Amino acid sequence: MSVSTKPASGFRDFLPADTARREYVFQIIEEVYQSYGFERLDTPCVERLDTLMGKYGEEGDQLIFKILQRGEKLQRALESESPSDTDLADMGLRYDLTVPLARVYAQNRNSLPRYFKRYQIAPVWRADRPQRGRFREFVQCDVDVVGSKSMTVEAEVTAALAQILKRLEFQGFRIHLNHRGVLRALISVSGIGADKETDALVAIDKLDKVGIDGVQKELDERGISAASSATLLGILSKFKNPSDAEFSNENTLSLLEEHLGSDEDGRQALSELSELLSLAKSGPAAASLKLDPFLARGLSYYTGPIFEIRSDDFSGSLGGGGRYDGLIGMFMKEDVPACGFSLGVERILVLLEERQQLQIPSANADVMVALWDADSAPECIKLAHELRASSLRVDIYNDFDKYKKQFAYADSRNIPFVAILGPNELANSVVSVKNLKTGEQSEVARREVAAFIKG
Amino acid sequence: MSVSTKPASGFRDFLPADTARREYVFQIIEEVYQSYGFERLDTPCVERLDTLMGKYGEEGDQLIFKILQRGEKLQRALESESPSDTDLADMGLRYDLTVPLARVYAQNRNSLPRYFKRYQIAPVWRADRPQRGRFREFVQCDVDVVGSKSMTVEAEVTAALAQILKRLEFQGFRIHLNHRGVLRALISVSGIGADKETDALVAIDKLDKVGIDGVQKELDERGISAASSATLLGILSKFKNPSDAEFSNENTLSLLEEHLGSDEDGRQALSELSELLSLAKSGPAAASLKLDPFLARGLSYYTGPIFEIRSDDFSGSLGGGGRYDGLIGMFMKEDVPACGFSLGVERILVLLEERQQLQIPSANADVMVALWDADSAPECIKLAHELRASSLRVDIYNDFDKYKKQFAYADSRNIPFVAILGPNELANSVVSVKNLKTGEQSEVARREVAAFIKG
Repeated sequence: MSVSTKPASGFRDFLPADTARREYVFQIIEEVYQSYGFERLDTPCVERLDTLMGKYGEEGDQLIFKILQRGEKLQRALESESPSDTDLADMGLRYDLTVPLARVYAQNRNSLPRYFKRYQIAPVWRADRPQRGRFREFVQCDVDVVGSKSMTVEAEVTAALAQILKRLEFQGFRIHLNHRGVLRALISVSGIGADKETDALVAIDKLDKVGIDGVQKELDERGISAASSATLLGILSKFKNPSDAEFSNENTLSLLEEHLGSDEDGRQALSELSELLSLAKSGPAAASLKLDPFLARGLSYYTGPIFEIRSDDFSGSLGGGGRYDGLIGMFMKEDVPACGFSLGVERILVLLEERQQLQIPSANADVMVALWDADSAPECIKLAHELRASSLRVDIYNDFDKYKKQFAYADSRNIPFVAILGPNELANSVVSVKNLKTGEQSEVARREVAAFIKG
Repeated sequence: MSVSTKPASGFRDFLPADTARREYVFQIIEEVYQSYGFERLDTPCVERLDTLMGKYGEEGDQLIFKILQRGEKLQRALESESPSDTDLADMGLRYDLTVPLARVYAQNRNSLPRYFKRYQIAPVWRADRPQRGRFREFVQCDVDVVGSKSMTVEAEVTAALAQILKRLEFQGFRIHLNHRGVLRALISVSGIGADKETDALVAIDKLDKVGIDGVQKELDERGISAASSATLLGILSKFKNPSDAEFSNENTLSLLEEHLGSDEDGRQALSELSELLSLAKSGPAAASLKLDPFLARGLSYYTGPIFEIRSDDFSGSLGGGGRYDGLIGMFMKEDVPACGFSLGVERILVLLEERQQLQIPSANADVMVALWDADSAPECIKLAHELRASSLRVDIYNDFDKYKKQFAYADSRNIPFVAILGPNELANSVVSVKNLKTGEQSEVARREVAAFIKG
């Protein structure tokens, strides 16, 4: 057989042991989101290409999996001179869950509540080069509130995230917090023009990876004047490598105030951050929120507070989000304020597995019914139905093999009990129940088998 | 704004009221599957094109959504002379869940148990022309057992399906049951050669829609001799429009025995059907299994028993399945017996909605915390966290509006209670709780609010 049986490159199969862990984690996330009043939204995996294109920057657009046109339309596209990928394709796999949310909100605005609080736990696709730990299909767990500019939104979203990580027994994570207005003000007071704002943002975003010197180089290359970069880096360097004790959120706030207080954007941003910290003070995120003037986050659609989950014991982030008051306006005539977070659940799953954290409830059956021969098989199947009626998960063995072989099979499946109803048991109106942990075999009255197994 | 905000043609958004119903139904299906010892498998939405092509017949291959090549590979494909869609695309969206199962089984055979009993509840895609009730993305709920030829497999699979339909409060459904060996024998004893078997099957499959005359015409057109079609239709007409009482499964079996008993395939098939009926006799499917010598089912990969769910009060089927002992052999060196069923859950959801069947638990919050002003907001958020810690689902209102407006909002969201913690309440160490059903407002000690709401 020449056909490969592997999944496509960058895609994964999840066998039952994996899906049990994954579903367990998804369910915890879903429970927490629901406890905050978020409701589930499902959007199609496939979107019109014009919905997706132009929302993620040039690099993002390249990473959208595009779906080939069909029939006549494909023929027509092929007949045109040097057709591009957007001629050959009409739809694409969604790249994230935020742009579909914006589209759905614009489409259903009139039937949606004033505050649209939705979560979505679903796969997204990116045509990235596959590598260790980077997949082309992965699940995102998003939570967003559309319809309010209030910092209570940020407080609730960050609290829900912290609560999820606590339920998943993560220790010592931090929610890094910054504000696009702080970054804009930083850039402005450094004398960098609005036309170079994005360039400066991209450079600052790399501080963690390339250090002050690297950022300096990047700013030079992007044509920002020496005087401006000196001012910008001068301010930023005051926050670099401080001891935690010295740099409480209060200290960071007042240091920012000192440098940015002259800028209106800066004052507004600092007042929002201060309000958010006060609203979060007594909630699950209180101890985790960490003001970080370096945090920039790549996506261009953020407008207000931005956040990202990090921890010392893993590199990179477990998810990020922020306020994007302009994105929905790309789909309708007016801007609608919105803020959300996307939890990188694949990464969380890898960490949980590495740490063997969490007691995942067994996905296996509670009992297996053995088979002896064709004559007794119908009664064995009937017994299985009886036990299911008592809320047990019941597997049956499907062929007529020696009991020893059947016990070994059940044991290999981690099924704790085997129920036997052969000719002897039928003659005596009992069921033999084998406990595979103790090896003990007991004769039990048929109507008492379920209770016996439940212990 | 010129961008459409509709989903792509043939695709659907599910707003929270829809997702609540859908998730509730999926959960019932999942619970029943698990109670039969089935475990969850997840496979990627995207498969290599060579995994998908050639498994569904020519018509099926046409309906696979194909994913455009990227970068250099796309350029190379475009430079070739008259590139076909399989040159331009390397992957596709899965068309069903059975072929991916076969691939996964072949790939993981050594680590899988002797009986691989898996379910999968997941979307599939077909590039069909969208029309009322026919979508291009829809969820299938599949259950399959790989690794046994025993009719206990068919008995368990059909029992699980019947149990799901009962839990969903469907009345009067039937599981139509036939066997590919019965059809093969019918064709053989009618003197139709093996080379015309598929043609005859396709014709028989249309009996329900086009009647005996239509099938006659189809057989003629497909070059089957007049004598052979007369024999075939002569046998089939004995089963046409019988009263139910006259045509019990026993009667159908003996009539088939009478006509097909001379054929070895036929004898084997009838003995398997008879065994299945006996194994199912005391289970949830017992009253629903209905032998139907006309049932053919389109897919070419079926080899043994085949089934389909129907009912008088809707046209078409709610799902179908059967034994396919040859499919996995397309992916590995040896054949592995397998049997499964695919439940058409989208159709079930439409019917449930039309009938307003099932009490779906509310997806809304149990209580909404109102906001008064910036000073009291942190304490309101804290109250929300306290109530969540008591396992309540708690929404908060996000802006500072008049309470009357906030009550109206909560009421429109079907949230039964509003908790108020304004300056007065804070001064008196109480919380005001408004019951929106009765209109009654009560002052409650803060630590008793959760208990008060839970009633």
